Amino acid sequence: MGGDLGPELPIRGALGALEKKQNLEIILLGPEERLKSQVAEIFGNGSPFLQRLHIEHAPETIGMDESPVEAVRRKKNATIMVGFDLVRHKKADGVISAGNSGATMAAAIRKLGRLKGVSRPGIASFFPTLKKPVMIMDIGANVDCRPKHLLQFAVMASSCSSILNTIDNPTIGLLSIGEEAGKGNALVKETHEILRAGSLNFYGNVEGRDVYKGDVDVIICDGFVGNVALKVSEGLADAAGQMLRAEITKTWRAKIGYLLIKKAFARFKQRVDYSEYGGAPLLGINGTGIICHGTSDALALENAVFVAADMIENKVNAAITQALTAYNA
Amino acid sequence: MGGDLGPELPIRGALGALEKKQNLEIILLGPEERLKSQVAEIFGNGSPFLQRLHIEHAPETIGMDESPVEAVRRKKNATIMVGFDLVRHKKADGVISAGNSGATMAAAIRKLGRLKGVSRPGIASFFPTLKKPVMIMDIGANVDCRPKHLLQFAVMASSCSSILNTIDNPTIGLLSIGEEAGKGNALVKETHEILRAGSLNFYGNVEGRDVYKGDVDVIICDGFVGNVALKVSEGLADAAGQMLRAEITKTWRAKIGYLLIKKAFARFKQRVDYSEYGGAPLLGINGTGIICHGTSDALALENAVFVAADMIENKVNAAITQALTAYNA
Repeated sequence: MGGDLGPELPIRGALGALEKKQNLEIILLGPEERLKSQVAEIFGNGSPFLQRLHIEHAPETIGMDESPVEAVRRKKNATIMVGFDLVRHKKADGVISAGNSGATMAAAIRKLGRLKGVSRPGIASFFPTLKKPVMIMDIGANVDCRPKHLLQFAVMASSCSSILNTIDNPTIGLLSIGEEAGKGNALVKETHEILRAGSLNFYGNVEGRDVYKGDVDVIICDGFVGNVALKVSEGLADAAGQMLRAEITKTWRAKIGYLLIKKAFARFKQRVDYSEYGGAPLLGINGTGIICHGTSDALALENAVFVAADMIENKVNAAITQALTAYNA
Repeated sequence: MGGDLGPELPIRGALGALEKKQNLEIILLGPEERLKSQVAEIFGNGSPFLQRLHIEHAPETIGMDESPVEAVRRKKNATIMVGFDLVRHKKADGVISAGNSGATMAAAIRKLGRLKGVSRPGIASFFPTLKKPVMIMDIGANVDCRPKHLLQFAVMASSCSSILNTIDNPTIGLLSIGEEAGKGNALVKETHEILRAGSLNFYGNVEGRDVYKGDVDVIICDGFVGNVALKVSEGLADAAGQMLRAEITKTWRAKIGYLLIKKAFARFKQRVDYSEYGGAPLLGINGTGIICHGTSDALALENAVFVAADMIENKVNAAITQALTAYNA
């Protein structure tokens, strides 16, 4: 049903994904009649892609403001519940949602359970940087963590980033308020010691100002801090854009300058746009789930399909389980 | 000694402040001979402002990477120690430092102690927003907090913001990962309940994406989260600037556009530049202290002087003590 913007964009995203990847089948989740008519509109009659597109009836949706735990308990026929049910019954390999992310996580855990050795599944997300994108985990699922949880995030994100970004042994940074080992809150200091003694490719602490430098492949933090970092970034980007627009429209000279510079702005926007990164994988669940931004456009949803396919084809979950077992041994 | 960039900029900042504010006297802290020769260079002979400029010899400095607690214990003659000593002996009213902020806080507490009723002094900082600047506290002094500490931050920042921004009853937001009362980590949920039941002008939770909207006057968070929010913002602004510059210099068309748009960029930069906000007040110490960014320019340091003067002349500390007493009653 496509988060804030309804089912049109997921359908367009599905069309894009089916066009580009031949071995893909997509199941749309939502009220059957509504999806059918919109599919007919967007795909047109006789589209060759229609044979790889299916619809699974799911009459309920979970709103953005609903309590995840309650909604998941009450709405058995919500799109996200039906989706993870398909995965549980091996009728689908993964689920993509641009809806309520807490409910998506809750539904995934309820329907699929956790991978062996995982205490708390979390959400990993790619951030654009000056170099290659960095994977940050957790960005909101676990607000109160113990060092054990952060260590598991490090193992999981390392396995996932290694596969999605084809990096041999990803470097892992620990988000803190100073680079030295002794800097940070109690959670971070303790986690730092354990990571330093462990077998992962631990880079050390990274500060907030290092997030966008791209010196590490993975950054680990608790879900409260990760969510603040993500949302502050979105808010700043949005506010800066508004302020800059206001200054530019003040004079004719600047307006003309803007016309000449517009393409550079567009390239810049594309470089930092989350649509290019294709959503945030749930890591630690016994299956594949991708959470997309509530305002995701068709491209973002299409890319989320490719991320999910990449994770499934390259067996990220098997890699995570193996890495956790090795790490614990 | 001026943080990363040496004493030249503080001296230029002092000159600017002395020019604009007639009832001001400034004491420079550092190695006497070095400061004397640099003052002569910048002020010139016979400057009328020289009679309101003094030098207090302080031969030691504390490096940015030194452990604050150790440095403060060992370096009795560091600029910052000498500065707060002057305040203790009523020879100065406040201290401004662009050096090691942990050491500045440690020196302030050691030399001046805390205000009555304050468990943990903290650092408040102004962030630019789409509307008026918002004061965020704490931005790094207290990494592990209990609800009691956040409540005291709320009382202190409210009193300070009320005076510095001349607002009657500042609205206070609590930084969390969702607007609803039940969203956040354990610390935030408990603090939310107490703030809601209390007498402050509590707005409710604000999310990271709301920080730059400017809907509240004050935002409260623990120092770990506040520091991450601040540094992530600085890092993003810096990275976005670099990426945008790289895109603009790719084509002649965009370069010409940039020439036309340059002034709009400059106005935008000025609007978000921390130099305009004049440093971050230490709140909760029995005296006045302002921490400036390590790379502060002369304007930032000049503005920090005005913030300190404003706090002293309008008795922020008396207001804080009174508000804490009233709140506790």
